[in-house]
Amino acid sequence: MKQTVALLGAGSWGTALALVLADNDHTVLLWSHRMDQVTEINDYHSNERYLPGVTLSSNIIGFDNMRAAVQDVEIIVLAVPTKAIRQVVQEVSAYVNSSVILVHVSKGIEPDSLKRITEMIEEEYTSSHPAHVVVLSGPSHAEEVVLRHPTTVTVSSKEMKAAEKVQDLFMNQSFRVYTNPDLIGVEIGGALKNIIALAAGITDGLGYGDNAKAALITRGLAEIARLGTRMGANPLTFSGLTGIGDLIVTCTSVHSRNWRAGNMLGKGMPLEEVLSQMGMVVEGVRTTKAAHQLAKEYDVNMPITNALHSVLFEGVSAKEAVDALMGRTKTSELEDLVNLWSSKE
Amino acid sequence: MKQTVALLGAGSWGTALALVLADNDHTVLLWSHRMDQVTEINDYHSNERYLPGVTLSSNIIGFDNMRAAVQDVEIIVLAVPTKAIRQVVQEVSAYVNSSVILVHVSKGIEPDSLKRITEMIEEEYTSSHPAHVVVLSGPSHAEEVVLRHPTTVTVSSKEMKAAEKVQDLFMNQSFRVYTNPDLIGVEIGGALKNIIALAAGITDGLGYGDNAKAALITRGLAEIARLGTRMGANPLTFSGLTGIGDLIVTCTSVHSRNWRAGNMLGKGMPLEEVLSQMGMVVEGVRTTKAAHQLAKEYDVNMPITNALHSVLFEGVSAKEAVDALMGRTKTSELEDLVNLWSSKE
Repeated sequence: MKQTVALLGAGSWGTALALVLADNDHTVLLWSHRMDQVTEINDYHSNERYLPGVTLSSNIIGFDNMRAAVQDVEIIVLAVPTKAIRQVVQEVSAYVNSSVILVHVSKGIEPDSLKRITEMIEEEYTSSHPAHVVVLSGPSHAEEVVLRHPTTVTVSSKEMKAAEKVQDLFMNQSFRVYTNPDLIGVEIGGALKNIIALAAGITDGLGYGDNAKAALITRGLAEIARLGTRMGANPLTFSGLTGIGDLIVTCTSVHSRNWRAGNMLGKGMPLEEVLSQMGMVVEGVRTTKAAHQLAKEYDVNMPITNALHSVLFEGVSAKEAVDALMGRTKTSELEDLVNLWSSKE
Repeated sequence: MKQTVALLGAGSWGTALALVLADNDHTVLLWSHRMDQVTEINDYHSNERYLPGVTLSSNIIGFDNMRAAVQDVEIIVLAVPTKAIRQVVQEVSAYVNSSVILVHVSKGIEPDSLKRITEMIEEEYTSSHPAHVVVLSGPSHAEEVVLRHPTTVTVSSKEMKAAEKVQDLFMNQSFRVYTNPDLIGVEIGGALKNIIALAAGITDGLGYGDNAKAALITRGLAEIARLGTRMGANPLTFSGLTGIGDLIVTCTSVHSRNWRAGNMLGKGMPLEEVLSQMGMVVEGVRTTKAAHQLAKEYDVNMPITNALHSVLFEGVSAKEAVDALMGRTKTSELEDLVNLWSSKE
């Protein structure tokens, strides 16, 4: 069934998702707060800054007026930066005329409040019409999605009927959508993988090679799962697309912003200089702070997160931190892994 | 405690392990059936064919006489190709004078017999003195180990006292050794990851990108774990170094022989031509045959293994096979993952 969908945020991921929807013959009302971007989308069917060389379908219509974009649709996709989520949801909730499905595609945990994105959305949504919140997450570079290269993602929600509607909306031959009822696991995996990507960039920057990186990813996944499980996630989710899948893509691709920042740190550049060179938010830096707090709160052993925290915020050198990680006393691997699942038994 | 260890097989991995032992001040009796290699090791302290540019410690002594190398030691490391394991173990068992620890570092499953390496060793060992068999496995390129880059591996055995002796023997600051009592899981993970590496090479050869490869590795791990668990492994082992760790190294490194062979297949080269271009055994091809048999025997759903089998042995094109994998009906991710652990509950 063809639908009209509002999609808020015309960055590379938002625009790529608009293309997937247009491939499925849906009409996409693509909102951006930048008038020049809206004009480019409508007049030239392109978004050169974020997806250079890509032609957008005429089913994708640019809007600079949020009310006009959202007021008559049943599904609204939020593809704005994590920092803008609260404000955009407040605005959306003032305009909707009936119950809607809000799909978010962001990854992160809010510093200090330690909230997941879904929790932030629920706090800000003030409409008298109830909203059903769905997350869409998984290993997915936008650049590959627009080339129609095979991509798999997961959708989750407290209300799986809503997640299944979103699955049907996006699913096609090259964009495969799975459902998973474990909302907490899907959101935590997506957020925390950025920590391990930073750490992987550091070991690569130190020139430590593929053996070290594989060990780091393996043990990083274990500590993410340890924390996530304590927070209420199903440990199995961390073996899936939004866990190990997204972790692999983020840690082994030079396109990853977090990996690139870690790489510079590993080469000895101070954090301030790295951040100014990147010129944009490095989500993993904020998430390391949040995870470090969460590890204390939930009393979970997270050696990689702590080592990264010591490099980012406590003046420890990258080499010292990695060598300290490697120098831990010999242990039984299975004991470590068993801790992972203990809350399940 | 300094020891004298026999190490059979002077390929790149055997020689790298000899260097780790020499770093720990052990004496290594390094056996090769090639006299010129033994002479090179003793006269020039090098093994140019397998580890170019590396200087070997004078604690590493070349032997071309197997009896002389093994008859007075307590620990013997087998670093010969999987195909040679049976013959070498027969010969060893004729020479040993007391109980020994036999450490194997090979990865594979024997076609037709469907035996693991440890089972092959047990069948061939005929000495009147009992042997304790230990496997050492994990994400470890030899080229990085000789540079003393951080590397982590796992040892396992039916007799964990023997595994712990091997852990003490190899452990140092840059080469970290973990124990895991799940012998079956450690051996199965190491063997089956070569199947997924071949498949990952194919998707890369088809130009399908990082999203597709991450999905393949994630779902490949799930099917390896499904089979391994049915064969008696602990499912947790597949989340560890010899599972996901080794899988990541093998699927994302261009140094991997199996990935390279898959890459050529993905670009459309016929299997015979790939194998002749490689000029050496591609273990994943044999293992695909074995795993395809095992999946039938244990009644386990292995879509990636079956797709690869259809490409290698049934004339299906690589593109057809991958597109069929992607085109499966939409499913719940967690249901798939839950199957993984069902035998545990």
